[in-house]
Amino acid sequence: MNTFGRNFTFTSFGESHGEAVGGVIDGVPARFKIDFESIRHDLERRAGKHTILPHSARADHEIDEIEWLSGIQDGMTLGTPIAFLIRNSNQRPQDYEHLKEVFREGHADWVYEQKYGIRDYRGGGRASARETVARVVAGNIAKQILQQKGVTIEAELVQIGEQTNPALFADYLQEMQQQGDSIGGIIQCRVRGLEVGTGEPIFDKLQARLAYAILSINACKGFDYGSGFEGVAKKGSEINGFSGGIIGGISDGTDIIFRCVFKPTPTTPLSLQKLGITAPIRSDVCVAVRAVPIVEAMTALVLVDYQLFR
Amino acid sequence: MNTFGRNFTFTSFGESHGEAVGGVIDGVPARFKIDFESIRHDLERRAGKHTILPHSARADHEIDEIEWLSGIQDGMTLGTPIAFLIRNSNQRPQDYEHLKEVFREGHADWVYEQKYGIRDYRGGGRASARETVARVVAGNIAKQILQQKGVTIEAELVQIGEQTNPALFADYLQEMQQQGDSIGGIIQCRVRGLEVGTGEPIFDKLQARLAYAILSINACKGFDYGSGFEGVAKKGSEINGFSGGIIGGISDGTDIIFRCVFKPTPTTPLSLQKLGITAPIRSDVCVAVRAVPIVEAMTALVLVDYQLFR
Amino acid sequence: MNTFGRNFTFTSFGESHGEAVGGVIDGVPARFKIDFESIRHDLERRAGKHTILPHSARADHEIDEIEWLSGIQDGMTLGTPIAFLIRNSNQRPQDYEHLKEVFREGHADWVYEQKYGIRDYRGGGRASARETVARVVAGNIAKQILQQKGVTIEAELVQIGEQTNPALFADYLQEMQQQGDSIGGIIQCRVRGLEVGTGEPIFDKLQARLAYAILSINACKGFDYGSGFEGVAKKGSEINGFSGGIIGGISDGTDIIFRCVFKPTPTTPLSLQKLGITAPIRSDVCVAVRAVPIVEAMTALVLVDYQLFR
Amino acid sequence: MNTFGRNFTFTSFGESHGEAVGGVIDGVPARFKIDFESIRHDLERRAGKHTILPHSARADHEIDEIEWLSGIQDGMTLGTPIAFLIRNSNQRPQDYEHLKEVFREGHADWVYEQKYGIRDYRGGGRASARETVARVVAGNIAKQILQQKGVTIEAELVQIGEQTNPALFADYLQEMQQQGDSIGGIIQCRVRGLEVGTGEPIFDKLQARLAYAILSINACKGFDYGSGFEGVAKKGSEINGFSGGIIGGISDGTDIIFRCVFKPTPTTPLSLQKLGITAPIRSDVCVAVRAVPIVEAMTALVLVDYQLFR
Repeated sequence: MNTFGRNFTFTSFGESHGEAVGGVIDGVPARFKIDFESIRHDLERRAGKHTILPHSARADHEIDEIEWLSGIQDGMTLGTPIAFLIRNSNQRPQDYEHLKEVFREGHADWVYEQKYGIRDYRGGGRASARETVARVVAGNIAKQILQQKGVTIEAELVQIGEQTNPALFADYLQEMQQQGDSIGGIIQCRVRGLEVGTGEPIFDKLQARLAYAILSINACKGFDYGSGFEGVAKKGSEINGFSGGIIGGISDGTDIIFRCVFKPTPTTPLSLQKLGITAPIRSDVCVAVRAVPIVEAMTALVLVDYQLFR
Repeated sequence: MNTFGRNFTFTSFGESHGEAVGGVIDGVPARFKIDFESIRHDLERRAGKHTILPHSARADHEIDEIEWLSGIQDGMTLGTPIAFLIRNSNQRPQDYEHLKEVFREGHADWVYEQKYGIRDYRGGGRASARETVARVVAGNIAKQILQQKGVTIEAELVQIGEQTNPALFADYLQEMQQQGDSIGGIIQCRVRGLEVGTGEPIFDKLQARLAYAILSINACKGFDYGSGFEGVAKKGSEINGFSGGIIGGISDGTDIIFRCVFKPTPTTPLSLQKLGITAPIRSDVCVAVRAVPIVEAMTALVLVDYQLFR
Repeated sequence: MNTFGRNFTFTSFGESHGEAVGGVIDGVPARFKIDFESIRHDLERRAGKHTILPHSARADHEIDEIEWLSGIQDGMTLGTPIAFLIRNSNQRPQDYEHLKEVFREGHADWVYEQKYGIRDYRGGGRASARETVARVVAGNIAKQILQQKGVTIEAELVQIGEQTNPALFADYLQEMQQQGDSIGGIIQCRVRGLEVGTGEPIFDKLQARLAYAILSINACKGFDYGSGFEGVAKKGSEINGFSGGIIGGISDGTDIIFRCVFKPTPTTPLSLQKLGITAPIRSDVCVAVRAVPIVEAMTALVLVDYQLFR
Repeated sequence: MNTFGRNFTFTSFGESHGEAVGGVIDGVPARFKIDFESIRHDLERRAGKHTILPHSARADHEIDEIEWLSGIQDGMTLGTPIAFLIRNSNQRPQDYEHLKEVFREGHADWVYEQKYGIRDYRGGGRASARETVARVVAGNIAKQILQQKGVTIEAELVQIGEQTNPALFADYLQEMQQQGDSIGGIIQCRVRGLEVGTGEPIFDKLQARLAYAILSINACKGFDYGSGFEGVAKKGSEINGFSGGIIGGISDGTDIIFRCVFKPTPTTPLSLQKLGITAPIRSDVCVAVRAVPIVEAMTALVLVDYQLFR
């Protein structure tokens, strides 16, 4: 289904090349002052602005205006559901005509057609990364609520391909784009200021909800926290309590630290060329770059869902 | 909360040293014949039997009888909730008296006390791995239902410490136990026979639900699927479609393949010795070994939750 | 919260005098052809058209256009969430200025202010009956899906005040309006064509879900089915099996028949006059009249929520 | 499904003539002292003790011992799920052998067989009123939690057949039982001490959740609150604000008052006689009498589900 959360819920709607994408946020307290500039800033980060992406790889044109439909009056929340939409003004279905007969490898088109008996080949329809624009809006509001309680969330790229030196990321991406190729990346996210006690034992452990949220992001292939996958080689006697901020499913008062990995998009100029398609395609040289604010958004949605009702 | 799933739900109860652990399984179809031998076999695997664990590290004595309270008549399901319990016959609170004043590093006792204002120091209370015995029972029933539909789930250890050669795992563990230490491990799980179409776009992607389920297992620190974390270094042009069986959140008809990592338990004879405690302690040299059937169980609970209602 | 249903969900948003009201419908099958004319007809019934209401008591001007935002392409559903909105073009906040200082007796303004610390005095804000316009849209789509399966839902007024003869309803209402007063009414709803088996034992009994849905409609004060409240005087030996179409919480293959009662609105010209307010007020002489399609809508949402996944 | 509530959940299990009935209560705060005597008292009321029922119509023998399986230690809650069971020591399947070939009119056996392809003819299986014993246990714990917050719930019979004078109820029932017949009844429930603000606008209105809970009780055919069905004849100018304690779906600080009606059981000595069956049958002369503590229990489960998280 298209709703995330239990107490603070976010319902997402919209196809990439339909009328609009948007969402309904339910559970926002009344009388909270919304910082619209902060929302816009995260939308810009998602479009590639303020990032290391080569200018030609950015999607600045995608930053349309948000129409607020309900739940806010004079910039203050009413305690009622906040509905918003962002029109797909930038609909360019003609860009995708050449794909009508070709299922893009590694894309969701084929499974969608199998499952629903329908294929919306234009930009992946609902499966498109366009949908994440609504997540960023909702997640930013969640971040604002958390910030008021002293909780901050910051994600950043820590690896691109085999490169782990951030100073070299920009050049690396430039080169990759010149090759018409794409590359994977790892994002690390840190939550500061969370008090002891967020999370539930057994099934709703904090790490379980975070993993669920993060792996719902397109192209994400893995999640770990604390000692993570690298900790496999550690002995019990060496562990020294690097908890990643969570013990027994519950925040322990130290920073939450987790990582997630994003695969390279398989639809690149290079790959299309192999299929004999030369038409231009909008594609990300490294989806992880633009995923950074999405990771923050999903993290915020998880935390606020627990937080509000403690 | 203590319920997993939406359509096929499993509610777990019980503290490690209370009266009993058990669960209620809701959503099982009527007239399904239960294979009790299969359940027992998985409980034995969870206790260490049929594994590479040194004999002294097994917990065979924990395999108590299951009392079936409802939902089954003459070995057939009624379509009503299946409740069961396993008594904690093996209650040995005296083993833990020496811990009454010592919070075990890396264990949930401390956060539990902070959150609930109460500490059940005897064996971790609800946070104990004892709780997973109920998961194995429920998960095995889910596996049986899936098997009838041609879907099988098999998990196996693929790494212990830095060792990736299964032929050497047993010796490695023997050595680790002699040192009074513990070590991490990686489990790989493969689902065969799943048709195209299991999973939901957006938030309830198959990989997201799987990650949620797997990271709810004690000591699990990470989850990845398909190309996973190692895929970070791959280029889009090299990917060749290793999907891990899931595209766009939906099964694509190939085998589902995911991995998960388990940290070493921090409470070892060696670590207690450092704290000046010499009393004997039940502890796992490598929790990943006994986690194998639990990984299968949680995977089955995820799949059957989607499957039953397609 | 503002979401109804589990499998076929409807999320409602919008304040009566904000930008728009609308909703998101999730769980609609793909490739279903929407009958937009049918939706419009129910919106007209909700506005008073095609009813016994005196012309001056109708709200025909409220029938604004629906903007479809997602989930539909060329009149066919995509299987993705259907989002829609109806703008509050008819915002007349000045009509309500005189109420700014007066809490209307029997209205939700006061409890809202207590609960949320905020009062949106303009037309009741979120509590306004305006919100039900979105229910009618979603419910009509649910009715269409049910109709394709041979299930029809028809509600009708069976009592106004003490009057039970439908032939006399129109005159009665005319008179009541001339007095500047309002009156209660009883609606009966009949579901035809539902096969045996809809409903769940124990908590999700069909009658329980129906009662929940119907009592969520503003001004509804009661629900009964089958022999209902009048059956209290019946003996077991006299009952003759008037089940109301439900036995043990599950449809039994006969028509579902239930009743619900609507109180008169307390905000009438007469009551405001007593408070010394003479300004014109939009008010319903008998809210039950316009509630008929809302009762059908909520019934459809309940049934389709069960139906789709049987 | 068999779970009630969202924050404070109660999962029920057990068939009337299986091994046991019981439940799991999740969401109970830690360190709450349980009053076991109060639970026992409500179980006795449910069995007919302390009521106007003729002695021969009581089911005192049904008051078996509760086995507490988890969540409680030394009489105090742990904050973990509370599981309990009550064995069906009083299994007398032979009493029901004569029904094996006869579907009891108005009972759930027939629809169950249609839906599940299986019939557990012994005492109605899961549909039996036996299941409500678990509701009374869980509901009593909810009542205790509410009582600590100053909220009390009291239900009472206000009508039996056409009789509305409580002084005459006992004689009326005596007579009815001598005739081998059964009769309907109306229960009124009053909640005192609830502060302003319990309930949610739109779908989770307090009256909607109450109606859902009450109509999930076997044999209940209707629910109304405040002016209820009788209010249909009232004019807006006469209403004088009898809210029943709820406005706009939210408690208004006055007593909550609602009513519910129970039909007579159709399986009476008289009705079986008509079918040519003369074997003895356990049957209720007026199910409303024993439903009183069940109505209180379900009310408490609704309120505590809202209350705990305000």
